[in-house]
Amino acid sequence: MKIRLAICAVVLIGSACAMRAQVVVKHLQDEKSPIASGVWAGDTLYLSGQLASPVTPADAAKGTAAVYGDTKTQAFSALTKIQGLLQAQGLDMKDVVKMTVFLAGDPANGGKLDFPGLQASYTQFFGTKDQPNKPARSAMQVAALAAPWALIEIEVIAVKSK
Amino acid sequence: MKIRLAICAVVLIGSACAMRAQVVVKHLQDEKSPIASGVWAGDTLYLSGQLASPVTPADAAKGTAAVYGDTKTQAFSALTKIQGLLQAQGLDMKDVVKMTVFLAGDPANGGKLDFPGLQASYTQFFGTKDQPNKPARSAMQVAALAAPWALIEIEVIAVKSK
Amino acid sequence: MKIRLAICAVVLIGSACAMRAQVVVKHLQDEKSPIASGVWAGDTLYLSGQLASPVTPADAAKGTAAVYGDTKTQAFSALTKIQGLLQAQGLDMKDVVKMTVFLAGDPANGGKLDFPGLQASYTQFFGTKDQPNKPARSAMQVAALAAPWALIEIEVIAVKSK
Repeated sequence: MKIRLAICAVVLIGSACAMRAQVVVKHLQDEKSPIASGVWAGDTLYLSGQLASPVTPADAAKGTAAVYGDTKTQAFSALTKIQGLLQAQGLDMKDVVKMTVFLAGDPANGGKLDFPGLQASYTQFFGTKDQPNKPARSAMQVAALAAPWALIEIEVIAVKSK
Repeated sequence: MKIRLAICAVVLIGSACAMRAQVVVKHLQDEKSPIASGVWAGDTLYLSGQLASPVTPADAAKGTAAVYGDTKTQAFSALTKIQGLLQAQGLDMKDVVKMTVFLAGDPANGGKLDFPGLQASYTQFFGTKDQPNKPARSAMQVAALAAPWALIEIEVIAVKSK
Repeated sequence: MKIRLAICAVVLIGSACAMRAQVVVKHLQDEKSPIASGVWAGDTLYLSGQLASPVTPADAAKGTAAVYGDTKTQAFSALTKIQGLLQAQGLDMKDVVKMTVFLAGDPANGGKLDFPGLQASYTQFFGTKDQPNKPARSAMQVAALAAPWALIEIEVIAVKSK
């Protein structure tokens, strides 16, 4: 009986060890984009940096370009996209543990970053009565973002917690 | 007895599986700041980017502005703040696994980043006789940081290890 | 017997709990560099930002400087270095879960970032027939990188999965 118990112990500890090492990685990707929108690594979800969606799409018939708005508007749009990506994975803004904000200089602000514009939209999603959680965050002005119209790119790491 | 052992095995494996999925997330935040100073996700601690503290605080009576010093001085200050935040969580510089350094151009250095200034302070905390551990690191010059006087912002990820 | 089983259960659950908390951290570092080339934290490998290797090394005898090439060339070189670092750790490009790309303005491109140059090399490593996985990614232009000749710095997080 002692032998059986010992075997049981070895098998179970072995199983537990194996589980520890088995991080499941899942790439959220499709054919269209060269990057994943996000990647799950165990309980951690890494999202790609998000740019804003246009307030007014380009109109080929009228020959008008897309309008993306100022830093506050673009921050709200990017955060809304992040929220949608999180919710599609069963998470939400409360689960964001780390955020990095890359701001481009705003021509309407003398080429400087519009920090109050970022904060005005950010504080609608984090540290509110309904969603009190706040992430660790770094924010800085970069030289330029991937799209010439972009004033902000936001990336987050979110974690599924118990 | 075999049945009891089997039940024991199922219960224990089930417990181990449940534990694996239960990442505890803890936000280190207060009312005053819109961001957390750090967030624990399991054994991983994400700290917010840290700027330097002033060498000489602003003096309203004298009408003088705060003095923050050069890149070396600000790097030492930011790293000291990081060390304090880590120690308050039972960690220390040895536990830093990843660092990102965002430098602003130093007017005293022709608007270029002062890399030797960063290194002079960094090497007092990492790769020393008493603290030999070195983090993975990226360092670059950004267009500007959130505060106009800031020459450096440092963010770290630290991990509680066995 | 029931008592023995209970003891067995307590010991095993205790072992499993302890394992959960025991993240093994391993620093991949040597004497020569002030930073680690990478740090393992459990199943997660954080690599330092990688710059390109020279296409043609400097030649002291001829008095010529090293040649590093354009953004596409430097991106290919940096990604090849990353692949080598991953393979030395038993991982490969398929295991990259997050990438951050810091581009410097290319003088040959009017001082702007060369995004197509990045993509031309990136897509040879990610989202191919042989290696379909794509990472979550952020990419932006910074003011400058640590080396004056550098047009790109790439950092990745990779995860060992089951």
